[in-house]
Amino acid sequence: MNTADLGLPVAVPSTALFTDQYELTMLQAALRSGTADRRSVFEVFTRRLPEGRRYGVVGGTGRVLDAVENFRFDETILGFLRERGILDEPTLEWLADYRFRGDIWGYPEGEVYFPGSPVMRVEGTFAEAVLLETVILSILNHDSAVAAAASRMSVAAGDRPLMEMGARRTHELAAVAASRAAYVGGFHTTSDLAAGFRYNIPTVGTSAHAFTLLHDTERDAFTTQVDTLGSGTTLLVDTFDVTEAVRTAVEVAGPGLGAVRIDSGDLLLIAHRVRQQLDELGARRTRIVVTSDLDEYAIASLAAAPVDAYGVGTQLVTGSGHPTCSMVYKLVARADSEEPGAPLRPVAKKSMGAKTSIGGRKWAARRVDAEGVAEAEVIGTGPVPAELADRQLLVPLVSAGKVVAREPLDAARDRHIAARATLPLSATQLSRGEPVLPTEYV
Amino acid sequence: MNTADLGLPVAVPSTALFTDQYELTMLQAALRSGTADRRSVFEVFTRRLPEGRRYGVVGGTGRVLDAVENFRFDETILGFLRERGILDEPTLEWLADYRFRGDIWGYPEGEVYFPGSPVMRVEGTFAEAVLLETVILSILNHDSAVAAAASRMSVAAGDRPLMEMGARRTHELAAVAASRAAYVGGFHTTSDLAAGFRYNIPTVGTSAHAFTLLHDTERDAFTTQVDTLGSGTTLLVDTFDVTEAVRTAVEVAGPGLGAVRIDSGDLLLIAHRVRQQLDELGARRTRIVVTSDLDEYAIASLAAAPVDAYGVGTQLVTGSGHPTCSMVYKLVARADSEEPGAPLRPVAKKSMGAKTSIGGRKWAARRVDAEGVAEAEVIGTGPVPAELADRQLLVPLVSAGKVVAREPLDAARDRHIAARATLPLSATQLSRGEPVLPTEYV
Repeated sequence: MNTADLGLPVAVPSTALFTDQYELTMLQAALRSGTADRRSVFEVFTRRLPEGRRYGVVGGTGRVLDAVENFRFDETILGFLRERGILDEPTLEWLADYRFRGDIWGYPEGEVYFPGSPVMRVEGTFAEAVLLETVILSILNHDSAVAAAASRMSVAAGDRPLMEMGARRTHELAAVAASRAAYVGGFHTTSDLAAGFRYNIPTVGTSAHAFTLLHDTERDAFTTQVDTLGSGTTLLVDTFDVTEAVRTAVEVAGPGLGAVRIDSGDLLLIAHRVRQQLDELGARRTRIVVTSDLDEYAIASLAAAPVDAYGVGTQLVTGSGHPTCSMVYKLVARADSEEPGAPLRPVAKKSMGAKTSIGGRKWAARRVDAEGVAEAEVIGTGPVPAELADRQLLVPLVSAGKVVAREPLDAARDRHIAARATLPLSATQLSRGEPVLPTEYV
Repeated sequence: MNTADLGLPVAVPSTALFTDQYELTMLQAALRSGTADRRSVFEVFTRRLPEGRRYGVVGGTGRVLDAVENFRFDETILGFLRERGILDEPTLEWLADYRFRGDIWGYPEGEVYFPGSPVMRVEGTFAEAVLLETVILSILNHDSAVAAAASRMSVAAGDRPLMEMGARRTHELAAVAASRAAYVGGFHTTSDLAAGFRYNIPTVGTSAHAFTLLHDTERDAFTTQVDTLGSGTTLLVDTFDVTEAVRTAVEVAGPGLGAVRIDSGDLLLIAHRVRQQLDELGARRTRIVVTSDLDEYAIASLAAAPVDAYGVGTQLVTGSGHPTCSMVYKLVARADSEEPGAPLRPVAKKSMGAKTSIGGRKWAARRVDAEGVAEAEVIGTGPVPAELADRQLLVPLVSAGKVVAREPLDAARDRHIAARATLPLSATQLSRGEPVLPTEYV
């Protein structure tokens, strides 16, 4: 097991405790009743997109694979469960040998999804599959929320680079996963060193107001920064007076100054003024970086401003108003007995209201029109219609317990950009609306 | 170093990479300019509470202490920084010896705060203190957001127990910190085994719809669960028909059934019906647990319903609409030279708009009226007025690099409940309003 593969900047021996207690007590009861080995199919899906959103983005698939591979119960964990009296000895013995030996299919990372899309399907015995519920949902709900926000921001930014700078606004390890998801959604770089270390995402940095305030004058601060990091550095120009700072910056660094950063005030107005001033000073190639509570709307509002790059923090790592995706993990089919080869029977909660789901092991395909533009998310439980056979969305991720779908993060990022490009044009409107594709059940 | 002390269920060698790149490049520049050793004071504060909130809750202080203690640059980390060309050799050598040797003061965990409250103050050389910015903010911004939501929910729930069940809705390690923060804010238990393992929070669990669906009949499922976990267990009664399920549950478990859980539908209506049915079946002491997208408002709306406990997930771990706290880490004072004993000079960003801050090393005290009810958050940079001397809020957390304020999590939880009780009554209104205490600067 590769202990570096957990989305952490450090080695972690197991993901098995990232689990709600009831997964384990259900296991114990199922072992007792002789149902634990019934072949079962669980599916991950959402009943709806966040309000107003037109598409979702699958984020975290690669992290799920790492988590499944490292879901093991070592002596420390078993000792904890024993000492707390949570489980009986036969269950603890069963867990000591646990590894997932089933199959996982899913939408590949970066793919878009819609209400009802079976973004992941876990097949195995009830016992082996039920245990993975909590950690799979944690990863997909978090990472997909950030990926979706990142995607909207990347639409708004067009060709301009996006820097992820949200580490300080979220849990220190959620931040690492958020950098990764942002990259999948279209961001280019991150300020988070742990994300650079773990996922090889390019890292960037400018400087803070504290650095200017540390020095006796702004000029001292700029001089030090340029002497140390070169004239290609980014100088922060809004500690005192922006016009004065820009003048000083170009005097100190020369017209080859890499960039200036603006972190407060009316960014639209200030960017125009700073551009004009830089041009007048001969620093025509000095770029303007803006950072200040940006979200996709603020980014879009700066489309016509002379801005060269955006640094985004809070709104990115908190999903721009939707920090989680309401994905659920539901048993949709199971065998009637523990006999190998017993046929699968569709099952579903039947009780009140909005939480009803559709039983049966599902396929999904995206139907396109004659121009290749997506027109529907088609989901079914029977045979796949011939015309959709090569439009299927689920791919094998784990086969007989072995991860079969590792890929570089860039593959997910490229896939996302390609998938988004096949959606109807209204997909990339930032305004609130319905999902851009209807979900059809056949 | 205690590698178990990182808010993780597993050992982690260092927190040093949970850091924005610019902290390190600013360090490098400051080392070059001879300003790195200037004595500096950084303060953590927020400019405002989330919209409509009446008080904030300090969460994560204990985790900050762990993070500071484990902020070290080992060979792996230094190798990464060297290979990426982020830092020069003198800076890497400086980092190899790094440990924080300064002082940290702060509001103790669980204390309430208001706009401008200096919830943490970090004093040391610029170099040693600037590096901690990102990880301190990550922890405080995340944990305080959850603690504040938890506090509001605990007000709404009154004496009824609150169970934290949000692991699946947030990053798997953020979930562990969220359980901890929820406990500080007044929750009683968690479903997250990692939180039980790491923080000794009592863990609980019920069962899922999948468990019922796995069995041939609901009766089979209930029988198995009761046989395995005892009649004190909690049976989930809304997979098919609630009335039928409650009847079956009491038949199977007897009138000593511990609890039933309702996870969908009109909880108010159903709770009344289920209570009546349980009473008629003689199960007068069987409790009713509700779980279904609860937030503080939904909890409050069930105050008159026969509900015995609440399980809360999504809205808790996402801060009930406010997943982060907008805390910032600002240089407020620094020496003019590296000479030991050089006097501190207040500094502050002076540029445009809302991001201006107030320079100077601050004290804070909470003034109370004759009845002991808090009436103002008083913050100053000069001498502390005599009448406020014993009302000061900042306590020593780290002295000369040594953690001096470790405490059991229950101490923070008790402190929160006590602090909240001293606020004016309107603090615990759930409706939107202004901060319940004004912030006064003297």
